[in-house]
Amino acid sequence: MPRVSVSIGDVERAAARIAGYARRTPVLEAAPGLVLKLESTQHAGSFKARGGFNRVLAAREAGGLPEAGVIAASGGNHGLAVAYVARALGVRAEIFVPTVSSPVKVAGLRALGAEVTQTGAIYAEAYEASAKRAAETGALEIHAYDQPEVVAGQGTVALELLEQTGGVDTVLVAVGGGGLVAGITAALGGRARVVAVEPELIPTLNRALAAGGPVRVGVGGVGADALGASRIGRIAYDVASAAGVESVLVPDGAIVEARRELWRSCRVAAEHAGAAALAALRCGAYVPSPGERVAVVVCGGNTDPATLA
Amino acid sequence: MPRVSVSIGDVERAAARIAGYARRTPVLEAAPGLVLKLESTQHAGSFKARGGFNRVLAAREAGGLPEAGVIAASGGNHGLAVAYVARALGVRAEIFVPTVSSPVKVAGLRALGAEVTQTGAIYAEAYEASAKRAAETGALEIHAYDQPEVVAGQGTVALELLEQTGGVDTVLVAVGGGGLVAGITAALGGRARVVAVEPELIPTLNRALAAGGPVRVGVGGVGADALGASRIGRIAYDVASAAGVESVLVPDGAIVEARRELWRSCRVAAEHAGAAALAALRCGAYVPSPGERVAVVVCGGNTDPATLA
Ligand SMILES: Cc1ncc(COP(=O)(O)O)c(C=O)c1O
Ligand SMILES: Cc1ncc(COP(=O)(O)O)c(C=O)c1O
Repeated sequence: MPRVSVSIGDVERAAARIAGYARRTPVLEAAPGLVLKLESTQHAGSFKARGGFNRVLAAREAGGLPEAGVIAASGGNHGLAVAYVARALGVRAEIFVPTVSSPVKVAGLRALGAEVTQTGAIYAEAYEASAKRAAETGALEIHAYDQPEVVAGQGTVALELLEQTGGVDTVLVAVGGGGLVAGITAALGGRARVVAVEPELIPTLNRALAAGGPVRVGVGGVGADALGASRIGRIAYDVASAAGVESVLVPDGAIVEARRELWRSCRVAAEHAGAAALAALRCGAYVPSPGERVAVVVCGGNTDPATLA
Repeated sequence: MPRVSVSIGDVERAAARIAGYARRTPVLEAAPGLVLKLESTQHAGSFKARGGFNRVLAAREAGGLPEAGVIAASGGNHGLAVAYVARALGVRAEIFVPTVSSPVKVAGLRALGAEVTQTGAIYAEAYEASAKRAAETGALEIHAYDQPEVVAGQGTVALELLEQTGGVDTVLVAVGGGGLVAGITAALGGRARVVAVEPELIPTLNRALAAGGPVRVGVGGVGADALGASRIGRIAYDVASAAGVESVLVPDGAIVEARRELWRSCRVAAEHAGAAALAALRCGAYVPSPGERVAVVVCGGNTDPATLA
C-alpha cells in the first residue's frame, strides 16, 4: 500500500481556507516554558471543527457540495463539529450514532440542526450504516480522522502555535484515530519534536509503531469517549512513523490529575482527552530538558463542568 | 482635594515589574470584531494578582518589605490574589474577612498559606480591623482598589491587550471599587474608548459621575461578591471623570445570560462579575457601530463550575 502523506503546503492551504470560519484559539503560558494551546475554546468545543471546515470548504471549491449535504458517524466531538460546520456553511448534516449514545449528546446534535440517526450497537455499526447511506444519497462523508483534508485541517493548530509563540521545541498531543497528531506533524515539518500521548488503556499508535502497522487494540478508561479509536488511522500511521514521532503512554490517574490542575491553576475547562497531553508531563512519561520550550495541546473542552473541581 | 492620577508611565513600569510574576493572559476572538481578554486564567483566577504583585514589588524596590509581610481585607478575589502573591514572593500574608465569609473561601485562603482572621459583621468592619492591625505590626497594606500601585498593576491588562490585538476601538470593563477601570483608562491614554459596566444594583461609578463625586450606593444582585463596593474609589473617580469614561448599567438577567454564553460558545469559565462587561453588548446597554473593534475584559473565573452550564 503506498504511504499517504500530507504536506506543509496542504496544511497552509487549509489554514487559508478555514480562516474566518474556525477560531484562532489562544495560547496561555501557564508556567515558564510551558504553553497551552486552548483548542477547548474552538467552535463546538474541540479542534475537530478545523478538519470539518477544511473538508467541506475544499469540496465546495472543487466543484460544489452535494444536495444531500454532509454525513458523519460519531456520538462525540466529531459529530458536534460536523453539525456546527454544516450549520455555519448552510448545508444539511446527517449524523449516525450508535443506539447507546446518551440522550444529552443526541439532543446536542439536534440543537445544532443535524438530522440524527441512532443505529447499531457499537460505533463500527453506526459507521457502516452512514457509509451505506452516503452511497445512496451522495452526501459528502466526513471521516473523524482518516481523510487528507481532515488531517490537514487539524494541522492548522500547529501553524497558529508557531506564529503565536515564535516557535517551541516540543509539542505534546493526544491521539485517538490520529488525525490531530498527523496534521500537527505534517504542519511542523521537523520544526519541533512531536510527542504523541495515549492512555495506557488505548495505545493505538503505540502498538502500531511496535507492530510496524495499524493493529486493533482494546479501548477503555476515562479518555475512551474521545480517544477511543480501536485502530490508528492509515494516514496517521504513515505520517507519524515516517516522521519518527515519539510515542508515550499515560495512566488514567495522571489524566484525571492533569485535568484538575488545568481547572485549579488556569480555570481551563478540559475533558479528559483534553488533559491527556499535559498528563505526560505530570507523570514523567515525557521529561523535557532544562530550558526546553514545550507546548501542550488542550484539544477539547466538552465536559460536564460540574466535574471540573 | 487634589486629583489623584495614574499615568501611562506608571502602568508601563508596573508591566515591567510584574513580568514573569503575573500571567500574560490570552485573548480570544470570539466573533469577528469581538475580542475577549481572559483574565479568568490569571493566577488566583482574576486580574487582581496584577495589582497585588505591583504593590508588593514596588515596595520591595523602594526599600524592602516589612518583617510582618502584607495585609489585606477581603473575603473574595482580592484576598485570594494577595495570598497568592505573598506565597509567590515568599512573604507573610494576613487576610481579614468578615465573620459571614463562607468556610470554602476561608479554606481557600488558608490553602494558599495566608493567616486568616475572621472579624466584623460586614466588610467595612473587617477592613477597619485590618488597618488597626497594620498600624501595630507595620505590615504593608494592599488595598483592593484605591492605591496607585494597585491601579497601575490592573492597568497592565490594557497594555497587553493593545499588543495582542494591534489596537481596538473600545474596551468594556466591569467596575466595583474601580481599580481595574482606572488602570485600564490610564494605560490606554485615549488610544481606545473605555466603557465602564456596572450592575443596575451596584451603580458606584454611575451615581458618582452624576453626583460629581463618590457617593454611597446600595449593593446587591449576582455580582455583589466581586463588584460590591458601596462607593467608588477616589482614584477611580478622578481618573474616570477626567477621561470621560462612558458609564452603562446592566440588569442581572443580562449578566447571567452572558455568563452562560461564555461557557456555551467558548468554554470560558467566568464568574458573574467576569461576564458583566459582555452583558452590556448582549442587552444593548452599549451598541458598537458597524465595524467597531470591541474588547471585553473577562475579569474573573472564580466560580463553582457546577453552575456554568
Ligand atoms: C478532545 C479530543 N481529543 C483528541 C481526539 C483524538 O483525535 P484524533 O482521532 O484525530 O487522534 C479527539 C477525537 O475525537 C477528541 O475529541
Ligand atoms: C472578578 C472581578 N471583577 C471585577 C472586580 C472589580 O474590580 P475593581 O474593584 O477594581 O473595580 C473585582 C473585584 O474584586 C473582581 O473580583
